[in-house]
Amino acid sequence: MIEAAAARLDGHARRTPMLSSPLLDDLAGRRVLVKAECLQHTGSFKFRGAWNAITALRPQGVVAFSSGNHAQGVAWAARLTGIPAVIVMPADAPRVKIDNTRALGAEVVLYDRAGEDRDAIGARLARARGLTLIKPFDMAEVIAGQGTCGLEIAEQAAQAGVTAADVLVCCGGGGLTSGIALALEARAPGLRVRPAEPEGFDDVARSLAAGALQSNARLSGSICDAIVTPQAGALTWPIIARLCGPGAVVSEDQALKAMALAHDRLKIVLEPGGAVALAAALFLPQPGDAVITVATGGNVDRAMMARALSA
Amino acid sequence: MIEAAAARLDGHARRTPMLSSPLLDDLAGRRVLVKAECLQHTGSFKFRGAWNAITALRPQGVVAFSSGNHAQGVAWAARLTGIPAVIVMPADAPRVKIDNTRALGAEVVLYDRAGEDRDAIGARLARARGLTLIKPFDMAEVIAGQGTCGLEIAEQAAQAGVTAADVLVCCGGGGLTSGIALALEARAPGLRVRPAEPEGFDDVARSLAAGALQSNARLSGSICDAIVTPQAGALTWPIIARLCGPGAVVSEDQALKAMALAHDRLKIVLEPGGAVALAAALFLPQPGDAVITVATGGNVDRAMMARALSA
Repeated sequence: MIEAAAARLDGHARRTPMLSSPLLDDLAGRRVLVKAECLQHTGSFKFRGAWNAITALRPQGVVAFSSGNHAQGVAWAARLTGIPAVIVMPADAPRVKIDNTRALGAEVVLYDRAGEDRDAIGARLARARGLTLIKPFDMAEVIAGQGTCGLEIAEQAAQAGVTAADVLVCCGGGGLTSGIALALEARAPGLRVRPAEPEGFDDVARSLAAGALQSNARLSGSICDAIVTPQAGALTWPIIARLCGPGAVVSEDQALKAMALAHDRLKIVLEPGGAVALAAALFLPQPGDAVITVATGGNVDRAMMARALSA
Repeated sequence: MIEAAAARLDGHARRTPMLSSPLLDDLAGRRVLVKAECLQHTGSFKFRGAWNAITALRPQGVVAFSSGNHAQGVAWAARLTGIPAVIVMPADAPRVKIDNTRALGAEVVLYDRAGEDRDAIGARLARARGLTLIKPFDMAEVIAGQGTCGLEIAEQAAQAGVTAADVLVCCGGGGLTSGIALALEARAPGLRVRPAEPEGFDDVARSLAAGALQSNARLSGSICDAIVTPQAGALTWPIIARLCGPGAVVSEDQALKAMALAHDRLKIVLEPGGAVALAAALFLPQPGDAVITVATGGNVDRAMMARALSA
């Protein structure tokens, strides 16, 4: 499925570069390779899964629940394929996210977090208008789409002479983490995926340590909002449990420092949740001569970037 | 020479991506393609010319005058090829630039702007230690190296379906501008290069308008310091005069706004001098359905980026 997804994405998704900087290598004490998914269409890897699901399933229209990167990926993939997209967002979502999603061509339906049931709204829209739900991570076509990032990592790491290393991946529901892990199992078995998460929202690290699925106690209050989810999925967790190494957990301050260093040394813009894997590579003890990190997204507002740069 | 340079750079320089955003297209009223040279090694296109000159001439060591992007490009190309690099910088250069150049493996020789002659210091070093001077723009091997960016633009524009468009290039001494113009003359004659400069330092635009080489009245006081030079070179000016369209001149405020939009929409970090071409594409009237811009560099300090983001 990942190979089929790669064929569908060819010429439509960007093959994002694998970046590095000698000054980051010095800081980490080893080579640090950074897969810059912030440069993907709509600013995060999410376009991959959205494009693959839409072109594989060929729906007459799609619906998604998201106020963030998944919404933008689905909206733009739908626009490019000429089908309608309805994005269901909480009425208190930041104005800029609502505007951006509309600017990418989607219809935004707002709901009241307190009084309305998101799933019921989505199901009603899907029935009434013949829309297909594109889930943010727990859907085979989405996982396969994200897995194309893993195929590229296998090739780019080999080109860089790296055949044995850990691959740190910013992890929310685990769609990207599991997709990359499946791709690397087949193509680069010397590369081992490890999920990276922020402190307080480290359900996947705890799940791996416990050998059983754990949840987050809370779902708000993190600057790493892009990768905060209740828990990994019914599809993604078994893949992560089978293939991934121990989780890496960083503080919000470390994520902000990694954003500033990515600005200085790589010339890329990362959001806090997209910087946790780089933070783990730079600030936590790591094994080996080289470490690969996936910089998953760059949809950060100006004030948060200014905060990272002044820290 | 550009084709030979491309062979030398293959596997050593990055093939930088051509980025775009539907939201920037909407703002400009046409497609805007952005060649992201800020993602090149050392954060600017300068690595191309430095690498080509060093691998073509095979010197036993190199010397360069620069406090900026050229210094970093030469330092890192020398380090990778295992030869010594001496960078001659004014003693009052910002500490961070001196430190960065040293961190890339170069020896930094400081001189007193008021009392010492830079050229005499360089000539003495070159003689005494057998070093070869790598000029920042007016040197055939450097122009050919920068021209490899033009070969990539020709291919990437064709892949994007753009065969007739203006190519706005941030222009200082004209090494990149002339190199790209030569490459496009041969490979994509429907693409016309136009130099982009900041107000008050628009010598190349005035030269093109006058049909004769003009100089800048002053050489300091611009936030676009990376592209401020006295005038175009003896080699670069005739190429620019023969091949380039009229210059585009933007304000510092427009450059800062383009930096912020590149942050928001493309997830790349640009320095003011690296953003003037994008600023021209977004804020000045342009012809045609599409415009290509070269985002030449991203070596900006955190305070300047914070200023751009708060504007």
